[in-house]
Amino acid sequence: MSEINEKEMMYRHSMSHVLAKAIKELFGSDNVKLAIGPAIDNGFYYDFDINKSISNDDFANIESKMKEIIERNEDFKREEVSKEQALKMFASEPYKCELINELPENETISVYYLGDDFVDLCRGPHVENTKFLRGFAYKINRVSGAYWKGSEKNKMLQRVYFYGFLDKKQLKDYVNMIEEAIKRDHNKLGRELGIFTTVDYIGQGLPILLPKGARIVQLLQRFVEDEEEKRGWLLTKTPFMAKSDLYKISGHWDHYKDGMFVLGDEEKDKEVFALRPMTCPFQYQAYLNEGRSYKDLPLRYNETSTLFRNEASGEMHGLIRVRQFTISEGHLMCTPEQLEDEFKSCLELAIYMLKTLGLYEDASYRFSQWDPNNREKYIGTDEQWAEAQSIMGKILDNLEIPYEIGIGEAAFYGPKLDIQIKNVWGKEDTLITIQIDQLLAEKFGMEYVDKDGQKKNPYIIHRTSIGCYERTLAYLIEKYAGAFPTWLSPTQVKILNIADVHLDYAREVKDKLCQMGIRVELDDRNEKIGKKIRDAQLDKIPYSLIIGDNEMSSNSVSVRKRSVGDIGVKPVDEFIKDILVEINEKRIG
Amino acid sequence: MSEINEKEMMYRHSMSHVLAKAIKELFGSDNVKLAIGPAIDNGFYYDFDINKSISNDDFANIESKMKEIIERNEDFKREEVSKEQALKMFASEPYKCELINELPENETISVYYLGDDFVDLCRGPHVENTKFLRGFAYKINRVSGAYWKGSEKNKMLQRVYFYGFLDKKQLKDYVNMIEEAIKRDHNKLGRELGIFTTVDYIGQGLPILLPKGARIVQLLQRFVEDEEEKRGWLLTKTPFMAKSDLYKISGHWDHYKDGMFVLGDEEKDKEVFALRPMTCPFQYQAYLNEGRSYKDLPLRYNETSTLFRNEASGEMHGLIRVRQFTISEGHLMCTPEQLEDEFKSCLELAIYMLKTLGLYEDASYRFSQWDPNNREKYIGTDEQWAEAQSIMGKILDNLEIPYEIGIGEAAFYGPKLDIQIKNVWGKEDTLITIQIDQLLAEKFGMEYVDKDGQKKNPYIIHRTSIGCYERTLAYLIEKYAGAFPTWLSPTQVKILNIADVHLDYAREVKDKLCQMGIRVELDDRNEKIGKKIRDAQLDKIPYSLIIGDNEMSSNSVSVRKRSVGDIGVKPVDEFIKDILVEINEKRIG
Repeated sequence: MSEINEKEMMYRHSMSHVLAKAIKELFGSDNVKLAIGPAIDNGFYYDFDINKSISNDDFANIESKMKEIIERNEDFKREEVSKEQALKMFASEPYKCELINELPENETISVYYLGDDFVDLCRGPHVENTKFLRGFAYKINRVSGAYWKGSEKNKMLQRVYFYGFLDKKQLKDYVNMIEEAIKRDHNKLGRELGIFTTVDYIGQGLPILLPKGARIVQLLQRFVEDEEEKRGWLLTKTPFMAKSDLYKISGHWDHYKDGMFVLGDEEKDKEVFALRPMTCPFQYQAYLNEGRSYKDLPLRYNETSTLFRNEASGEMHGLIRVRQFTISEGHLMCTPEQLEDEFKSCLELAIYMLKTLGLYEDASYRFSQWDPNNREKYIGTDEQWAEAQSIMGKILDNLEIPYEIGIGEAAFYGPKLDIQIKNVWGKEDTLITIQIDQLLAEKFGMEYVDKDGQKKNPYIIHRTSIGCYERTLAYLIEKYAGAFPTWLSPTQVKILNIADVHLDYAREVKDKLCQMGIRVELDDRNEKIGKKIRDAQLDKIPYSLIIGDNEMSSNSVSVRKRSVGDIGVKPVDEFIKDILVEINEKRIG
Repeated sequence: MSEINEKEMMYRHSMSHVLAKAIKELFGSDNVKLAIGPAIDNGFYYDFDINKSISNDDFANIESKMKEIIERNEDFKREEVSKEQALKMFASEPYKCELINELPENETISVYYLGDDFVDLCRGPHVENTKFLRGFAYKINRVSGAYWKGSEKNKMLQRVYFYGFLDKKQLKDYVNMIEEAIKRDHNKLGRELGIFTTVDYIGQGLPILLPKGARIVQLLQRFVEDEEEKRGWLLTKTPFMAKSDLYKISGHWDHYKDGMFVLGDEEKDKEVFALRPMTCPFQYQAYLNEGRSYKDLPLRYNETSTLFRNEASGEMHGLIRVRQFTISEGHLMCTPEQLEDEFKSCLELAIYMLKTLGLYEDASYRFSQWDPNNREKYIGTDEQWAEAQSIMGKILDNLEIPYEIGIGEAAFYGPKLDIQIKNVWGKEDTLITIQIDQLLAEKFGMEYVDKDGQKKNPYIIHRTSIGCYERTLAYLIEKYAGAFPTWLSPTQVKILNIADVHLDYAREVKDKLCQMGIRVELDDRNEKIGKKIRDAQLDKIPYSLIIGDNEMSSNSVSVRKRSVGDIGVKPVDEFIKDILVEINEKRIG
């Protein structure tokens, strides 16, 4: 731990004593039984057993009582006592006694006084006097229930959480970050906006995309398929399951079976199937369908592919960790000479996707290598791994990609370049991966006749061009806090008529927009225009078109842009022209 | 059997004796051992044990020898003999002896002479004289191997198949039908054209759509999703599996479990999942995500949905009978008053799809009802079934749909209108289905608040708007013999340059077409133009554009239309305009 961190943790810990003393003073010393109060990553907490619930109304009092204690310039004083003395000292604190009783018989026990009238069982260290805490920035976070010792067999206590940092700026930044994260968390916002839901009796990690979410994924998939088509990728649609025979050839049965959903019982059933965790061996069949020569290479196959991974229930998280997901997965077969250019074009495609979606700035790179100390996790020889990793390293260096190395993170058949993204809570996951594989072609008998007439195995690049759609959708929700770029918005325009007399004209405008392929809704409810505007903003609709007398008489619309507000009156045709340019250019801002 | 059929079968049977006699005469009586020779549905066959293979070169001789025998006006003469006499009579025919030995001891055995020098063990009846066979139309079909008594433990014999009909027109029609079916059979042609394949180690009923097939399905899916969007359907994307809990609520666990792929073991595992055989209970979650009022209805949800059915291996057939398929499945929730109109609009959508694809003329309708004698196959009461069927019957009668009734063909939750299509071999399958369900909404607690403030269960229409994509693709292959309408063709235009000097211009034309979204390829091989044209026709490309000196100097192309041949020289822009109209209108012809 760095010096700053040690200091910060000591201050936080001291503050938890201040908190405990404040609670005692506010709620009456005898009414409050103390449990434990550690420093944590973003501040500190204390667990209390009080006969009365601490409510939001108490928060201000708690904070000002703590300020008062700090301003008293009270000393933190350490004392060492025997177990017997400690038990006497904390006779009225049953939780402290329980802790003391668990200590070894001859242990010297340290306690810390804060002023003369408050003492806590504690290892320390602490600041010497509360005057040192005057610059410390703290803010109550929340109160939540916590079982004593974390066991639901014990009593539920009240845990008071505080944010706490060495200065005000740090606290402010952190609180802002948290507030922003709470607002943006896809697992909350995505449900509130009607993008997805989950249902207990269907299962964890099996999200249901509601119409808004399904529309965004449909738009993304079409965009990706069309872009891949332009870049020379050939679409396949291969089955989501296969007999175990296939996975035995590919190595998945030996190296990945625990992560797969298996259908049937090897001992009982004639045919055992498994849901696919990857597209590779399925897509290879397209290559294998004809004899191939060097003239056919590179051959690029893409698929909007659904995969299944049998993850533990506890690992599921919203749209980011799921059991079934759909991904634009592709496999490219090429000669050694073509490898670098093809790898580069895969990376260019991935970067183009990230830039188009506005996620590029948030991405970082990992060069995921094998772990030679864990040989059984991989197929192939040491020489083959050394070669594949050396090739990939050279390519990455030539491309001047700033990567970190992840030992033991390779696929079982080859090294990977992983493009990583963090979610709003700071947790990093892989969004996109590009892999070099010189092993699987041989296992599947994939060959081409080279210029010299010899049969050779092609290199295979495994790659995704965009992250799995569920995960990408999650990052987009968080990135844009649900206010998606216009081209991706499930509803792009909402028409709001001021009164019933404007309805016919409003419908006319709606039809005009519809015919141009713009996704438009009409809010024809009998509501005040202010409410209609607010509702459209809550729904994060990019454009609201307000229609009243003036607009009707001038064949125009009054335009409110989501991020900006009122941007004035425009002729309908001009609005259509402008929004179509924005959509076609897939503008982010 | 009708009188005509009896006559036809007697003639066919008589012909099989003529065939046997012809083979004896051609190959030498002692070299040919006779097995059996029955009449069959489309003619007759005879199994022979000959020391020499019958080849295609023998076919004409066999047919003319048979003609010769018929023209001899030989009598068919019946005789009855004892077992002992029969064994003596057929001493040189081991297969006949084996058959005779299997007969009961005192059986009177009939034999038939054809002329004086040929006798066969036979129950008859036969024509009296070969002169009656003069008008009979017959044609050798093929020779194939057949084990004696169908057991692979026995010797492989040569089976000579003949088509045989009472008159020449019937024979000609039948042979044409067969030749057409062979040419069109999707299971053969689809593989030859590189539309799909199957692989043993992946499994039966799990076809792999190669780039051409995947492209057609992609085009169909986009077309259907867009058309459904226009008609007010809301897209969902729901998971392909769920815990058994879901299927227990829906009734699938009790009524459909055998047809489902189950993951896990109910006795051992905490959570048992199953792959979905239908979308219904998944899509209901979108309805259940919010409180609903009568003002929200009808609510129409569609999904490009992948389903799984655990069919027996023997039932698999190409793209028509598969274990995994994708279908545009939808569920529509409505009030009783809306039911008829909504049912009608579902049917209109289905008919629009069939007409657009050119399959409408081939469709027929089945009103699939429950079987009250098989109550355990269904949920709901007798009254509920009577009501649902009466409603559907009235709707169908109002729409003047000419339907047949299929007792016992209903879904377990309600009656269906099934739209049936026959494949090239005459086998009928359901392509599209529209169902009325008044039972499942209650099971899932789906409600709406009606005008009177009461909570009610909506009616649900289950429907597909197009058949499952695999099956639809199969019918399209067979309907068009692989020559798909231009809008559905994986490659729409092939550019053929006559010589290398035309390459730059050819590439220019290609780019121009590409930019207009036309799927175009350039055949720049160093081949004669005649070969390039033939290859493009074998690939069933709708348009070939031939480019030579004249075309290059006049900024035009020489157009060959697949079904027509040369249609003359056109300016490039005119060709583009014409083909875009054809594509946008989704022209069939």
